[in-house]
Amino acid sequence: MGKGGMSHGSAGEAKDGEEENMAAWLLGINTLKIQPFKLPPLGPHDVKIRVKAVGICGSDVHYLKTLRCADFIVKEPMVIGHECAGIIEEVGSEVKKLVPGDRVALEPGISCWRCNLCKEGRYNLCPEMKFFATPPVHGSLANQVVHPADLCFKLPGSVSLEEGAMCEPLSVGVHACRRANIGPETNVLVMGAGPIGLVTMLAARAFGAPRIVIVDVDDHRLSVAKELGADDIVKVSTNIQDVAEEVSQIHKAMEPGIDVTFDCAGFNKTMSTALSATRAGGKVCLVGMGHSEMTVPLTPAAAREVDVVGIFRYKNTWPLCLEFISSGKIDVKPLITHRFGFSQKEVEEAFETSAGGGNAIKVMFNL
Amino acid sequence: MGKGGMSHGSAGEAKDGEEENMAAWLLGINTLKIQPFKLPPLGPHDVKIRVKAVGICGSDVHYLKTLRCADFIVKEPMVIGHECAGIIEEVGSEVKKLVPGDRVALEPGISCWRCNLCKEGRYNLCPEMKFFATPPVHGSLANQVVHPADLCFKLPGSVSLEEGAMCEPLSVGVHACRRANIGPETNVLVMGAGPIGLVTMLAARAFGAPRIVIVDVDDHRLSVAKELGADDIVKVSTNIQDVAEEVSQIHKAMEPGIDVTFDCAGFNKTMSTALSATRAGGKVCLVGMGHSEMTVPLTPAAAREVDVVGIFRYKNTWPLCLEFISSGKIDVKPLITHRFGFSQKEVEEAFETSAGGGNAIKVMFNL
Amino acid sequence: MGKGGMSHGSAGEAKDGEEENMAAWLLGINTLKIQPFKLPPLGPHDVKIRVKAVGICGSDVHYLKTLRCADFIVKEPMVIGHECAGIIEEVGSEVKKLVPGDRVALEPGISCWRCNLCKEGRYNLCPEMKFFATPPVHGSLANQVVHPADLCFKLPGSVSLEEGAMCEPLSVGVHACRRANIGPETNVLVMGAGPIGLVTMLAARAFGAPRIVIVDVDDHRLSVAKELGADDIVKVSTNIQDVAEEVSQIHKAMEPGIDVTFDCAGFNKTMSTALSATRAGGKVCLVGMGHSEMTVPLTPAAAREVDVVGIFRYKNTWPLCLEFISSGKIDVKPLITHRFGFSQKEVEEAFETSAGGGNAIKVMFNL
Amino acid sequence: MGKGGMSHGSAGEAKDGEEENMAAWLLGINTLKIQPFKLPPLGPHDVKIRVKAVGICGSDVHYLKTLRCADFIVKEPMVIGHECAGIIEEVGSEVKKLVPGDRVALEPGISCWRCNLCKEGRYNLCPEMKFFATPPVHGSLANQVVHPADLCFKLPGSVSLEEGAMCEPLSVGVHACRRANIGPETNVLVMGAGPIGLVTMLAARAFGAPRIVIVDVDDHRLSVAKELGADDIVKVSTNIQDVAEEVSQIHKAMEPGIDVTFDCAGFNKTMSTALSATRAGGKVCLVGMGHSEMTVPLTPAAAREVDVVGIFRYKNTWPLCLEFISSGKIDVKPLITHRFGFSQKEVEEAFETSAGGGNAIKVMFNL
Repeated sequence: MGKGGMSHGSAGEAKDGEEENMAAWLLGINTLKIQPFKLPPLGPHDVKIRVKAVGICGSDVHYLKTLRCADFIVKEPMVIGHECAGIIEEVGSEVKKLVPGDRVALEPGISCWRCNLCKEGRYNLCPEMKFFATPPVHGSLANQVVHPADLCFKLPGSVSLEEGAMCEPLSVGVHACRRANIGPETNVLVMGAGPIGLVTMLAARAFGAPRIVIVDVDDHRLSVAKELGADDIVKVSTNIQDVAEEVSQIHKAMEPGIDVTFDCAGFNKTMSTALSATRAGGKVCLVGMGHSEMTVPLTPAAAREVDVVGIFRYKNTWPLCLEFISSGKIDVKPLITHRFGFSQKEVEEAFETSAGGGNAIKVMFNL
Repeated sequence: MGKGGMSHGSAGEAKDGEEENMAAWLLGINTLKIQPFKLPPLGPHDVKIRVKAVGICGSDVHYLKTLRCADFIVKEPMVIGHECAGIIEEVGSEVKKLVPGDRVALEPGISCWRCNLCKEGRYNLCPEMKFFATPPVHGSLANQVVHPADLCFKLPGSVSLEEGAMCEPLSVGVHACRRANIGPETNVLVMGAGPIGLVTMLAARAFGAPRIVIVDVDDHRLSVAKELGADDIVKVSTNIQDVAEEVSQIHKAMEPGIDVTFDCAGFNKTMSTALSATRAGGKVCLVGMGHSEMTVPLTPAAAREVDVVGIFRYKNTWPLCLEFISSGKIDVKPLITHRFGFSQKEVEEAFETSAGGGNAIKVMFNL
Repeated sequence: MGKGGMSHGSAGEAKDGEEENMAAWLLGINTLKIQPFKLPPLGPHDVKIRVKAVGICGSDVHYLKTLRCADFIVKEPMVIGHECAGIIEEVGSEVKKLVPGDRVALEPGISCWRCNLCKEGRYNLCPEMKFFATPPVHGSLANQVVHPADLCFKLPGSVSLEEGAMCEPLSVGVHACRRANIGPETNVLVMGAGPIGLVTMLAARAFGAPRIVIVDVDDHRLSVAKELGADDIVKVSTNIQDVAEEVSQIHKAMEPGIDVTFDCAGFNKTMSTALSATRAGGKVCLVGMGHSEMTVPLTPAAAREVDVVGIFRYKNTWPLCLEFISSGKIDVKPLITHRFGFSQKEVEEAFETSAGGGNAIKVMFNL
Repeated sequence: MGKGGMSHGSAGEAKDGEEENMAAWLLGINTLKIQPFKLPPLGPHDVKIRVKAVGICGSDVHYLKTLRCADFIVKEPMVIGHECAGIIEEVGSEVKKLVPGDRVALEPGISCWRCNLCKEGRYNLCPEMKFFATPPVHGSLANQVVHPADLCFKLPGSVSLEEGAMCEPLSVGVHACRRANIGPETNVLVMGAGPIGLVTMLAARAFGAPRIVIVDVDDHRLSVAKELGADDIVKVSTNIQDVAEEVSQIHKAMEPGIDVTFDCAGFNKTMSTALSATRAGGKVCLVGMGHSEMTVPLTPAAAREVDVVGIFRYKNTWPLCLEFISSGKIDVKPLITHRFGFSQKEVEEAFETSAGGGNAIKVMFNL
């Protein structure tokens, strides 16, 4: 399928007497078009949401550039977007906890609740998961979406719709902190000060981490991390030969030792540093996905019982994210560096900005 | 230090009126000599043990061949051996639970009990650990050793001294099973049917694993594994290109899915297979140490929340090993394939046998 | 509502051309009648099961005698029974893993999968749970029932339908063992050798408990427990004054100390014994519900960090129960002491037998 | 042994040329005398501390009034006091991490490190524990004491000696929070606003508890709790009949539900309230020890899987307490309500003040 070459037969048409629902469709490589999007019928446990804020995620950009992300491939036109918040417009017959007018943040994944992983409480690993903008499931960069009520979390009065949309990227950090068991005794190293490194840092602080050191190759990113609360920063190179020297610098910056390292980049070098820097009995949590196959000193780390834990998305994170934001333990607003409206032109500009490699952290649509 | 070139100044001399204590000293590469070994004084919480059974471990062979193992380097003559059992000859003034004549198995490592890791119950990671035959600490292939009483575990009447010595290698499997949380719901894959793969398999069975598949490149080892209780065996190659095909074979042999894989070899290929074969949300426990730096598909595994847990030796395993052996849940006797006495000639032969790449599993000294 | 005084308006009528589905209706105190039972429509994820084996539970008897159990009150006629197995007759449009003719055991509770407890993997605590024969939900002592496919577990060829029905009571023991973290290092005391004490003992053994002592006031029950595998038995009184003496006897029967005690009776005396007998750092799992308010030495136990864990039903237990039964780790057949057919007269006799205080353990219907 | 009737034969005498070490000896009921106290020799891993701050604990008062506490009985004259901090005067030959002049807080219990509980990391349950001022072990209300170096924790520059002494009572709260697994998702109820209730509340906040409600019978204590950071307070009665009504009030004060309740009083009524108020799947941590035998609705709580966890002292808490205090996450200074010097008269007054039932929270000696 070439650039812009997908037909968009599944785009819907408005019912009589109703405003037409418009969405941003990914039609081909580097081709996004705002076109009508017909909503599915409202089930008894569903709600219809007027979408008001949608953030752009790295995976959205990846789909736009390549029509794929990890093992997922876009084969049919697909509405993009999955970090969102909005206002309830209509509720299904069995919905009891939400009413029209409620402001909500949306958890994007619908799991099956019939498989073992769902039943054991690891629904993020459900093989039947239907997730916004993960092909072939449509996303949420649209005027309206229909979604299960139990995946819509009411915003406290003090939390804005944009902050609601930020629950999605923040959830990645929260889930990583839970898996690595971060608490007030955990000294934390974060490899990478990009958007995911920053939300992981903020989440680790909110979980009580007393000392956090963050590492990056870029001065601007490090300075942002420092402003957002890192106790110390270490600038590193991309040269694998420097690992030993940089581990030594990191150890100086974190004298009591590193209990948990989050690798939010996921390259051979960052993971090698992570495995070497973490104390015996500590953990490395692999969050970033720079390299797929990795060449790393895994055996010496294992022989110090440094465990490697992975994460996939998140589960049960929205209530905690909203608690962190509404209590002020986490301020996500500084992460929103750019804002756009929902016109064809602005959608294109927004994705360019997000992809641009400039100083954008989070690019947000206001619909 | 060249082959055989170490002086052995620390070798002791017998006290008047006492039989001289003899030990097997590692004096240089490929040079082991039986020579006098002076015991330290008996502390109030120590016991003196007449050693009766000592097994040869792969690390002993490694020290003999290279004077090093992992980061440890033999710089001075050192008594070798650490898998042992014997009979109490003398007890310190404060020892209450043991008396002369008791048959005991010895846990080889003395930790400091003053560092954080000791106090938190992870004493195997103690940085001050003094461990039999890990330089510069002397080992236990000797007529007599002095050891803390609390590291000497009384053998039930039904357990032989040789079986007592087998608690040490078995402890590696037991510790691995604990770290991987093996129980009656855990389907287990074991990569490698060498001595460590076999004790891990036996331990996993004793922890309740309902189905165990074991993989190796060698037909004889696989047939031994099958005799010792593997539910199924899969013969694999050493070619990294075969991973996908072999994972498919392994999945056929273990239809419900693999919850935990023990990589008891520790090569790029075995670990790649382990990471690919284990189900989402499962664990890979890295036990073997074939390669130090590893090139493996770590990121896709992490993105399925397949965690990698390492092990270092063991902790609190002797009572459980003795329970497993005395109850018959584990039979370690078939692992003992060769036996030798404690003469200069037999010591040399025993190490040659152990190193020889033949069908030796465990080579045991009877002193 | 007096004895037999409930109308049974909700009893259904057969469709034309179909055999009428009959069920055992609880109509009032001590009043059970076999009457028609109209099935709900088959949803896309449901199956229709021809019920073949149903066991009688203590709660069924309690409902029959009092129309209540714990906080649940029978206000309308209700089909009784919840321990069952049968054969699939029809599958919903989305059911993929079952086909007509499959023999299955039924997990009786349908949880909401929308509340926090469900999403966190503790669905047994779901406040919206719909559970067979827990008012106002109908049970399964009927020719046919409709049930979600994911709660129907296919029986291995070697497992009979009666054994399938036994998965339900066995699940209580399995869940208790999981909550108390039973493994090959856990010495277990079971208070009470009734049906629940026995399934808990069998489950503890299957989880690897090396030594199990069981306690009761009744010689016959103790002898049954011994036959079923208890390592030792201790006969006790109902006199609270005897606790100290009996704890001493129990300690003699279990010299290494008791790691976990299951109180499967739930009286002041059994719980006092449990709290006193368990070692520092151990656990007491309260399974039985003899007394609601309890007078027990809770503070001295807490000061030894003896924790008290409770259980409510079970979750995710059927696959493990079937594994235990099919592997022979647990033999539930000796627990089935009486069998009845599904006629009005036999239903009455069966409940009398179960309630009778004789030596009945499990009374089973064959439909 | 009558009031004041104990001889004090173990009191020591000064060596030539050294100032005499004085200590507060408990000689009989209500009889404390400052008398010479001869120190044991300094072992290689010990340090000698010039004691500078000692707090009075409820147990100290209890010993003074009754010569007993729980199962411990004072049979010989004993130096009292165990909450302390001081300055290193001398270090043993093997001590590496401390030097004379270092300011340190002292963890009071010396465990054996040879028993199973020590080796498994639960050293607080060690049956051989030697603990300051727990008979027959002398305490630390003295000019100087000798103690193992690894139980002396260096104070950060910003932490005063009095704050160092406060690590001991704070450790109880910290250990309780660890056992109850408090984090940023745990809504907490505290029963009792006495010294232990307050340190538990402060610890729960520092572990991240987002909402804490505290309950007491006393207005003044409640107002102190509010000032120290409770989100809400509920005044309750001592009448057991009021439990249901008060649970309802507590639920109003904590709308999202109570995840963990700390019972820091330990009476029938407080525990009944705790068990009833906590949500299904939550935990009650029993910290206070008002009643030994308790009459409580344990069974209904167990049937909602509300677990009861106990605590005994603490383990590995000093580093975290110092982190909490030095970071400002916890301010213990407002808890120190009274200060006394170390003269015979002031010691008597201090204990009267602590015992007096007035508004004293923590009474502190400055030596």
